Formats: sequence, structure tokens, C-alpha cells
Amino acid sequence: MRTRKKKWAPNELENNPRILRGEIELPKGKPIHLEIGCGKGRFIIETSRRYPDIQHVAVERDETILATAARRAEENNAGMSLVFVVADVNDGLDFIKTGEISRLYINFCDPWSRKKKWAKRRLTHDTFLELYEKLQIPEIFFKTDNRILFESSLESFSRKNWLLKNISLDLHANEPEDNIRTEYEDKFSVHGPIYRLEAYNRAKL
Amino acid sequence: MRTRKKKWAPNELENNPRILRGEIELPKGKPIHLEIGCGKGRFIIETSRRYPDIQHVAVERDETILATAARRAEENNAGMSLVFVVADVNDGLDFIKTGEISRLYINFCDPWSRKKKWAKRRLTHDTFLELYEKLQIPEIFFKTDNRILFESSLESFSRKNWLLKNISLDLHANEPEDNIRTEYEDKFSVHGPIYRLEAYNRAKL
Repeated sequence: MRTRKKKWAPNELENNPRILRGEIELPKGKPIHLEIGCGKGRFIIETSRRYPDIQHVAVERDETILATAARRAEENNAGMSLVFVVADVNDGLDFIKTGEISRLYINFCDPWSRKKKWAKRRLTHDTFLELYEKLQIPEIFFKTDNRILFESSLESFSRKNWLLKNISLDLHANEPEDNIRTEYEDKFSVHGPIYRLEAYNRAKL
Repeated sequence: MRTRKKKWAPNELENNPRILRGEIELPKGKPIHLEIGCGKGRFIIETSRRYPDIQHVAVERDETILATAARRAEENNAGMSLVFVVADVNDGLDFIKTGEISRLYINFCDPWSRKKKWAKRRLTHDTFLELYEKLQIPEIFFKTDNRILFESSLESFSRKNWLLKNISLDLHANEPEDNIRTEYEDKFSVHGPIYRLEAYNRAKL
């Protein structure tokens, strides 16, 4: 997503206490759920509101978008059980300790579907799954509206031996009550099906 | 599929040399590919025509439908590299020796999708995958137009640790040149996507 610069963003980035930098310290005792590519935060803000006993961490590489998400979290009074980190997954996720993340959300990430050679950039590509394995992440909840991305994701997870569960090839045909729509999902579901899967790390079962 | 009785069927069943019974003997040296639920045979007749170096075996539990398929094979001069067996997979596939089948085709089988408790009857349910494993079948090529069946099949194959490859969630959107359409596929693809996968038995890789 490309965004216009926002005048208030630098101030937000500096002063919003939810925005963390460097190797972050999180309160002990709560399971940590991470979203990579949180966008403007609608999904993770609502998720953290519904599950206050979970420590949510939202990652976004675009500073301005992250500032928007953090500001919205502030307005929604989300508390410190939702924090934000400006980071690019391509640099690893080393701001958080191995074994600390108990769930990863990937929602409507860039499909990189126009050219075959771009497949490696997909957040569900084998090399990323290896990163998630190295971090000992036990489960990944994944949604997309992109067919090619979903097909290749099913194959990557299978190749890397993750256990696939609760697959939906048309999530909104029979939308589960606990589905939390992202902004993008709400907008683009009219154009075709939303795909979803849960993948479990067999080494952590 | 329910069918009207055909007057010529008993004669066909008795006299068509392609229709085998009991523990069958097949020519040695050719890989054996099996289709379960061949219907009127369009897929397997065309497949055997294109791949004459493979010994094809088509299984169907409905005698009259099988008679139709065998008669068509005769008309198409398919030769003995395509044979037919009246059998119900629920009785096992013990007419063929363990380790002899090198590929299994399952095309548009009954989805058993109206009631949850019927899921066990699906030809891709865990208990059937266990049967295919016992028979040491190394690969399964599977097509369906039923979303619920396809979702549950992906999950069964993953649960039983088969390797998933070449998944398509809309086969006709970009139809591969080597796709051979079944009669049903041709007729029903206008109503929605055709799903396809290849599953590989990890114990045989």
C-alpha cells in the first residue's frame, strides 16, 4: 500500500507509547499473538479487544500506516495489550525472542502473483516458513483473496510439513461468527472468494 | 448416479473382454493407473488413448454404467491397455495386488456434503487414505467441483501426511493443455470452479 505522508505521523511515531522499537520487552505471562502486515489495524484492534488475555503485537513496515493503526488503537482505548512495531519481515523478526510467539496472523499480504520469479517474496514461501519454524511459531492463521497466492501457500505448508486445518475456500459463503474482517477483506470480498487456512507446526504439536 | 436398466447391458457385461472379475491378471511391465468411479468412461478412455504405455484400470460399482463405459472403450478401439472392473471401493481394492498401482485417479466422486456425519464416506476420507497407503499407492490425482469435499480432502491429505502439489482452485481459469475433462466436468464447470490436486504418499517418495 502506498500512502501519502501525514503531517501528524512523525509526532505519533515518537509519542504513542504503543509503538515499540528495538528488542522489545513485553509483559510476562500472556501468550503473544503477532500480526505481520497489520495495515491500518482494524483486524488486530478488534482481535485484541475480543481477546484481552492475549498480548497482541502488530508489525508493519510502512511507518505512516503504522502510525495510523497506533492512533486508532489509542482512540479505541486498546491498552498496552496491543503494541506496534515498525519492522520489515525481510529483516527477520528478531525483535522478539525465539519461542515467544504462540500465533502468527497473516492477512491479505502482497500476493506477488504477477511474475513467477516473485513467488519467493510471498510471506508463506518456504524461506519464510523456515523463519517461522526457527522462531518456533506453533500456528499460523492465514487469509487472502488471491487464488494464486493461496494455491502456492497450501503447497508450501505441505512441502514444509505443516498440518493444515479449517481450510475455507469461500470464507464468506458461510462466515464463522468469530471471523474478524480486515478493511481490505470487507472491501474486496465482493470480487471473489476469501480463502483461509490454519497451519500448525508439527514440531510443536 | 442412478441409471435406467439397459437391455444390452447383461450381454455386454458377459462378453466384453475388457470387463474383468475376481483377482485380475494384468500384463506385466507396464505401470498401472487406476480410476475409481469411472462413470461412463470418457476420462479414462481418452487418458488411455493418450498414454498407451500405461495399463489403465477403471473401477465402477454400477454394472450398467460400467457396461456403457466398456462398450464405449470397444467403439474407441482402446485395446486391452484399458480394462474395467465392477467393484465397490468400500469392499477394498483387493482385486489388485499391493504395490501394483502406481497412480490413482479420483474424479468428481460423491461429495457426501449434505450431512457432516457422511464425511466418512468420502473417497478422500482418512480411512480411504489408509487403504490407499496399505496398497502402497504413491500418487493420487483428484478433481471435484464440490468446495466442501475439496476443503475436507486437503485437510485429510494433510492429516495423513501426504505431500500436496499442483493445487488448482479454478482449473478452467487457466486450463492446462493436458487436462482431460470428464463428462461431468464439462457440464458442471459453468456453475463454479473446478478444484484439483495431486497428493503424493511420503512413504513412497
